[in-house]
Amino acid sequence: MNQSKRILNEWSIIEEGFDPNSNEASESLFSLGNGVMGQRANFEEDYTGKTFQGNYIAGVYYPDKTRVGWWKNGYPEYFAKVLNAPNWIGIKVTIDGVLLDLNTCKKISNFRRELNMKEGWLSREFEATLKNNCKIKVYAKRFLSLTHNEVGAIAYTVTPINKEMTIQYEPSLDAGIVNKDSNWDDQFWNILEINQNSEQSFIYTHTLKTNFHVCTYMESKLFIDYKPLNTVPKNSHTSTTACSIYKENIKENQHFTIHKFGGYTVDRYHNKTKLIDAAKETLQKSINIGYDELLVLQIKEWKNIWKSADITIQGDVKAQQGIRFNIFHLNQTYLGTDSRLNVGPKGFTGEKYGGSTYWDTEAYCIPFYMATKNQEVARNLLTYRYNQLDKAIENAEKLGFTNGAALYPMVTMNGEECHNEWEITFEEIHRNGAIAYAIFNYTRYTNDYSYIPEKGLEVLIGIARFWQQRVNFSKERGKYVMLGVTGPNEYENNVNNNWYTNYLAQWSINYALENIEKVKDTYTEDYLRILNKTKITEQELTDWKKVADNIYFPYSEKHQVYLQQDGFLDKELIKVKDLNQNERPINQHWSWDKILRSPFIKQADVLQGFYFFEDHFSSKELEKHFDFYEPITVHESSLSPCIHSIIASKLNRMDQAYQLYLRTSRLDLDDYNKEVHEGLHITSMAGTWTSIIKGFGGMRIKNNLLSFEPRIPKEWKGYSFKINFRNHIIHVNITSEKSTFTVDGDKDVTILLNGKKTIAKATLKIS
Amino acid sequence: MNQSKRILNEWSIIEEGFDPNSNEASESLFSLGNGVMGQRANFEEDYTGKTFQGNYIAGVYYPDKTRVGWWKNGYPEYFAKVLNAPNWIGIKVTIDGVLLDLNTCKKISNFRRELNMKEGWLSREFEATLKNNCKIKVYAKRFLSLTHNEVGAIAYTVTPINKEMTIQYEPSLDAGIVNKDSNWDDQFWNILEINQNSEQSFIYTHTLKTNFHVCTYMESKLFIDYKPLNTVPKNSHTSTTACSIYKENIKENQHFTIHKFGGYTVDRYHNKTKLIDAAKETLQKSINIGYDELLVLQIKEWKNIWKSADITIQGDVKAQQGIRFNIFHLNQTYLGTDSRLNVGPKGFTGEKYGGSTYWDTEAYCIPFYMATKNQEVARNLLTYRYNQLDKAIENAEKLGFTNGAALYPMVTMNGEECHNEWEITFEEIHRNGAIAYAIFNYTRYTNDYSYIPEKGLEVLIGIARFWQQRVNFSKERGKYVMLGVTGPNEYENNVNNNWYTNYLAQWSINYALENIEKVKDTYTEDYLRILNKTKITEQELTDWKKVADNIYFPYSEKHQVYLQQDGFLDKELIKVKDLNQNERPINQHWSWDKILRSPFIKQADVLQGFYFFEDHFSSKELEKHFDFYEPITVHESSLSPCIHSIIASKLNRMDQAYQLYLRTSRLDLDDYNKEVHEGLHITSMAGTWTSIIKGFGGMRIKNNLLSFEPRIPKEWKGYSFKINFRNHIIHVNITSEKSTFTVDGDKDVTILLNGKKTIAKATLKIS
Repeated sequence: MNQSKRILNEWSIIEEGFDPNSNEASESLFSLGNGVMGQRANFEEDYTGKTFQGNYIAGVYYPDKTRVGWWKNGYPEYFAKVLNAPNWIGIKVTIDGVLLDLNTCKKISNFRRELNMKEGWLSREFEATLKNNCKIKVYAKRFLSLTHNEVGAIAYTVTPINKEMTIQYEPSLDAGIVNKDSNWDDQFWNILEINQNSEQSFIYTHTLKTNFHVCTYMESKLFIDYKPLNTVPKNSHTSTTACSIYKENIKENQHFTIHKFGGYTVDRYHNKTKLIDAAKETLQKSINIGYDELLVLQIKEWKNIWKSADITIQGDVKAQQGIRFNIFHLNQTYLGTDSRLNVGPKGFTGEKYGGSTYWDTEAYCIPFYMATKNQEVARNLLTYRYNQLDKAIENAEKLGFTNGAALYPMVTMNGEECHNEWEITFEEIHRNGAIAYAIFNYTRYTNDYSYIPEKGLEVLIGIARFWQQRVNFSKERGKYVMLGVTGPNEYENNVNNNWYTNYLAQWSINYALENIEKVKDTYTEDYLRILNKTKITEQELTDWKKVADNIYFPYSEKHQVYLQQDGFLDKELIKVKDLNQNERPINQHWSWDKILRSPFIKQADVLQGFYFFEDHFSSKELEKHFDFYEPITVHESSLSPCIHSIIASKLNRMDQAYQLYLRTSRLDLDDYNKEVHEGLHITSMAGTWTSIIKGFGGMRIKNNLLSFEPRIPKEWKGYSFKINFRNHIIHVNITSEKSTFTVDGDKDVTILLNGKKTIAKATLKIS
Repeated sequence: MNQSKRILNEWSIIEEGFDPNSNEASESLFSLGNGVMGQRANFEEDYTGKTFQGNYIAGVYYPDKTRVGWWKNGYPEYFAKVLNAPNWIGIKVTIDGVLLDLNTCKKISNFRRELNMKEGWLSREFEATLKNNCKIKVYAKRFLSLTHNEVGAIAYTVTPINKEMTIQYEPSLDAGIVNKDSNWDDQFWNILEINQNSEQSFIYTHTLKTNFHVCTYMESKLFIDYKPLNTVPKNSHTSTTACSIYKENIKENQHFTIHKFGGYTVDRYHNKTKLIDAAKETLQKSINIGYDELLVLQIKEWKNIWKSADITIQGDVKAQQGIRFNIFHLNQTYLGTDSRLNVGPKGFTGEKYGGSTYWDTEAYCIPFYMATKNQEVARNLLTYRYNQLDKAIENAEKLGFTNGAALYPMVTMNGEECHNEWEITFEEIHRNGAIAYAIFNYTRYTNDYSYIPEKGLEVLIGIARFWQQRVNFSKERGKYVMLGVTGPNEYENNVNNNWYTNYLAQWSINYALENIEKVKDTYTEDYLRILNKTKITEQELTDWKKVADNIYFPYSEKHQVYLQQDGFLDKELIKVKDLNQNERPINQHWSWDKILRSPFIKQADVLQGFYFFEDHFSSKELEKHFDFYEPITVHESSLSPCIHSIIASKLNRMDQAYQLYLRTSRLDLDDYNKEVHEGLHITSMAGTWTSIIKGFGGMRIKNNLLSFEPRIPKEWKGYSFKINFRNHIIHVNITSEKSTFTVDGDKDVTILLNGKKTIAKATLKIS
């Protein structure tokens, strides 16, 4: 009973046996989401063992007053917390007067949970002997509907095994929830109304400070041996909860089932005074459709998702399960239909981090969504930042910048910065570059240039202005320098001339200049609007150009590499392989100052630049830099191994690429960092996807040509993937013998194969 | 009534008129202390207006659990808070049934408070008309006895002015106190016993976690027109307070006086189970002596202090009051008789900062105590660090250092680090150098070498070991470098090769090596003991030497100055005078990143090194560095202007030296930083003293020669000071016409004057 094992499966995450000690980890791994709400895999029935209860509603957050040891000017006043939402899944189960609680049962056997990623549902089954010796079998299945995304459905069945029993179900709503990570033990929710009618309950609430209005609701239907019962429950409520009580005598081997429908109506989609009505409408629709048909719709919708997103790997179930787990959770977190939402680093699986938007979105997630969904989804992610441009300008103003310079926040919900470590908040400014890069990446991939005159150019101007103001001229060097920054490698803080940041700054300015010209030439109306709004002047553009042309890059002639920052070569360049393994991960063993003056790199930094701008450097240069930086990279960020895997593939170092792939794809499944109980690493999952498509697949777009240069890890017999490229679904099938490319729909496509056997190379030209 | 003014006076701080808005500032300025306890100048009677209540007992602290926004490995688990102690000064006053409360009186007139620095007492007088139209005159005087340092005494007199009144005094003890700056709203004190007998009350308490035991006590004597009354009070208590009630009918113009004696007995000086007995004994002694005689003793004791510490300034009351205010508060804070105590940055005047010991002690305070008191006092301050060597070794171990390397804490009570900003705690390591320097400074001044074999050498070895391990060899430079440090200028963080730190490191190692040799040669027994304890080897000493001989110093050929750190010349070197005055102080107007990449210096950094090691550099070099760094120094630390004033004097820039002197000496009196309500800047007061003695006085010791090269600010007619040099009290009297030196006691002294008229130069040789 105290052991559990995970069964490898291509399409499901399966756990057999119940281990209370790993329960919180499983609650994370088996989480459900449908893009607008989500929840950890908590039990429906009461559980007094270790559990981390979590329900989350996309975009509903609380501005928790900042708590710091030592205040620094410029810190934001609050930290936007992902908000634990009222719980609608609860079903208290009483068997002959004894509460079902897996923590107090005499015996539990045949415990099994499954997260079916193909069809989008979670199930759990077990047999339990209660303290009163009642033996029962339980089967529970639930899902958050994709087709009706305000509702979730649970089918919960108890079957008496050793005798007839009186079984009581108390489906409930609970709005008395708190955040584990609250700074000041504030109350986050205020309850406005608890409303119950025969079979329905509603708790109408709003969040304090942010005033988001939410109605949490439920309705249940009961069945014995799958035949509906027409019982009317006894309702009751407290000041924070509401429940309905159903009680029946159930014979041995009879199935007593409750279908519980529940979820949230939110004022983002309804009039805030009409949320109970909206919930009633949603319930009526769901009940009319019924649990079984809702599930059929769910399966169909997931089939649709997989159609353009699935990756198959032959001969390596571990790798196969890993990549599907990543694709599945990314789709649970964000579906791209609402440009007010974004991809939180823990999705709907935990509280940690707060905020929903990091540079992860632009650097890691956009390529995934762009290639697996309609291009509107990536456009929505770009629009999210466009809509927050004013806030980014305000953020920059708080730090002393002027004239429309924009600094996008490190962490945000609504565009305002909400993180408070000076070395990150004020200095990890490369995030601004990733936002410009995403615009470039989008137009390159989709060929949809219209985004730039419509929205993108204003963002590019704000960002270019920031860089121009952020550098200063060093008389000593006769160059522009960028002092006091933190690069992607957060194991160095407040350094000067981080190469990656300087390179992005130069590129962003040039890209902005190039697009100002383009828009001026071809979108006159847009140009005049933007000119009027941003008041850019010729003199300003000249100033930008001066910076871009004269920015300083630290370079070592001796090593022939760009240096991560000015002082890098003063460090003692010991290698990761020479580290004492007992001191790994170093972030759990070394004091911060020791980490900072060590050469060890948390995540791709210079190499992140080489990844972004692969065309700017030769293979020889890439190899030099990889050989210099990889041996000192500890990959203690979830965002690191994927980039290194991609580069290793490109350099045909397949063993290394494969090992790094496993590390990224099974980071949470195998709990590399011993923290999965806190939630999953959602955004890095997109990096895993990229490490197959761009890494092993060798996908590139250049001069409007899509090309692949696939390689196969020796552990695999073959692999295939699908991508949506400019409204063509392209199937790429790679084996060591032969690689093939097929295209759904429009056939006006040229496929070129280079004919090599093990290293297939192909170019696919969209005419 | 809402205005008050401070009257300039050579010996007193005087405030006339009552301004409730500046009350908290006055509570700081008029604070009392006697080295073992202290208190803000709170009112004895109840006051419902704005007040910051504070009583403090030296060395009694609470380890408040650390609170941070983002935890970094290596942070200490707690922050040692200066603990608000039970209040013994309270005397509730009721006049014909109405409470005396300056916040609710109908009228207040002739309000005056005086802090008499010559005699060491605080007085307050006023006339008040209460809501019941009773008009009274109040005169209160109190002091914390220097001769009987566990007791304080209050004489509080109410005189009815317009009629006979019933006056009730309720002297009280209050242990229900909290710290304003508590991190988690913890309770700090636990009450063990409240004990009252006819005229005495005792509250026996201990601090939670640290378990310091303290008995707070009181006894009162009543007088009408100075004739003793033999009344027995009515006693009462609550769970946290104790009081005695005295009630008398007092005729018009009669004086009704209460003498209240109170204070603390502490387990540092008594058996912790006998603290009430000890308090009884103390009370008996004090009552026997009586208030008036205790005050006579107090005046005598202060006279004694001033005898070797006073500085007179002719023709400039502002400057005169400033320096006496500084000398007075330094003596209130620390008297040097107990090597377990130290000089807290706010003394007994507020809570902010926590901890009692900073590098301020070694860098700023020791010269003051060394020259104004018996040399035992400075020795006690050194011994304090010696006693904490084991903790300093532990601190270093927590950061990964080995083999007895010692890192003294940035902030401490008991030797453990308790500050938690990584850029300070882990990186502002120059503090270690100041501790080595203090040992050198002490032996140079006192000629007492015995401290080194007895204690100092072990400290020097621990510190040298730290430096040797903290540097690393840069292949790039072929030199040892010190990465990731913060110098005294905290407006740069995590820089490489801070010149001051590197210089101190080199000097500390060489000084340790030199003294190992000396002790080896002349104190064989000590040497063997130390060798046995520290296990130093020849190889180790060679390694130290290699570091000291090959440490890197950033230097600019162009500017001919040592650079504050590696990247300093990449900054835009704008000057303080070109700053927008509305943006001063920059630490209240600029975001932290903007401060960090600006050239602006918070406090002397390279110049701190030039101050410490004045003999190592030529006047030409000093001038170059002062001209380079002074124009970019914003002096936003209380520790800054004094050092610059000293150097300006040395360069004969007397106007600048004088302006900087005023800024340091009247920092709190004129509230330059708008924060005096939080408490005073005690440690920087020692810097003020130094700016007269070493700055204007030009005092130096070299090759056992004491010399002066005095200069006079044009605002002064002359000035004089006294210092205790090797058990001679030397009087130095300087006017623009003539400087004289006289010596108390032993006359075997040679005085040399250079005969110049305005710039007297003299050397005083102790044979």
